[in-house]
Amino acid sequence: MGRWKPDARGRLEQAALELYGERGFEQTTAKEIAERAGLTERTFFRHFTDKREVLFPHANPLRESLLTALDAAPDTAAPIDAVAAALESACGLFAERRELARQRQAVIAANTELQERELIKLASLASALAEALRRRGVAEPVASLAGEVGIAAFKVAFGRWIGEPDQQDLSRLVRETLEGLKAVTAGK
Amino acid sequence: MGRWKPDARGRLEQAALELYGERGFEQTTAKEIAERAGLTERTFFRHFTDKREVLFPHANPLRESLLTALDAAPDTAAPIDAVAAALESACGLFAERRELARQRQAVIAANTELQERELIKLASLASALAEALRRRGVAEPVASLAGEVGIAAFKVAFGRWIGEPDQQDLSRLVRETLEGLKAVTAGK
Repeated sequence: MGRWKPDARGRLEQAALELYGERGFEQTTAKEIAERAGLTERTFFRHFTDKREVLFPHANPLRESLLTALDAAPDTAAPIDAVAAALESACGLFAERRELARQRQAVIAANTELQERELIKLASLASALAEALRRRGVAEPVASLAGEVGIAAFKVAFGRWIGEPDQQDLSRLVRETLEGLKAVTAGK
Repeated sequence: MGRWKPDARGRLEQAALELYGERGFEQTTAKEIAERAGLTERTFFRHFTDKREVLFPHANPLRESLLTALDAAPDTAAPIDAVAAALESACGLFAERRELARQRQAVIAANTELQERELIKLASLASALAEALRRRGVAEPVASLAGEVGIAAFKVAFGRWIGEPDQQDLSRLVRETLEGLKAVTAGK
């Protein structure tokens, strides 16, 4: 494959996830990822600081997508409805990436340090949602609670989407999970 | 102070939290903690594997307390009510320890690695609650959701209890926060 073929980043990501799955995250080198993708190691380091960044991109498109949609929710929306709109909007990011997401979760599940990084990422998303809600004028502790339960619901819905091959629609699972949350907290 | 005075562990904990607050966690040694407590370094290592264990005890009394109370909840209790009973029961652990808890949170807030450890501890408590609910016959995703929201509510209530000097009763704050969660998830 030619060095300047489009979407080098996408090819590197796919190659990395394959190798992390086959050999383990620790046992895979940037050089091997580049080789599998038919690219040079130098190209790898143009796209990623290190092999962990393949799993946890600095740009964090999920965070961007959540916050953009939350800011766009109508002023009259209840906090949980603004969070729901943000989560459903973010689902679009994963539409074509289910197999990659499944591979990524398997790699993370196999490595304690990566699990810790994932928890930190989720906690920082909950904080970012709470902060965005406070900017909309939502008071504490409602802002923090809505951020925490939103991310908890997303995590549960995402796990079902990845784990249940017959579940095709992540945003439907997110809606169902938020409905489930309403029933759970009401003591049903 | 004599070496065999009772509650060496409690004195070591208090000395450690003072020093972590004054000098920073990284800058404090086990030797200094023992000296402040009027004990030997050897005594420190009889009670704690390392200085991090002062903040994150292996025995994890919070986890034990939560699970014992959850298992004791009536079979007919809704999952969230069983979780609420567990959280309220665990509040008793902190009744006499508010100042220590406040110091501990300040030390953790000042150190990224400790913050990460705290997130992992909280996530593992949410998983343990979900697992205990499944043992009671609660199905997924309800068990996971109830575990996650229970710990989210506890975290928010605990933060208020530590941060607001006029809030005296942690278990009342936990109840209020769970009520607030019900309103939040219902879109109020």
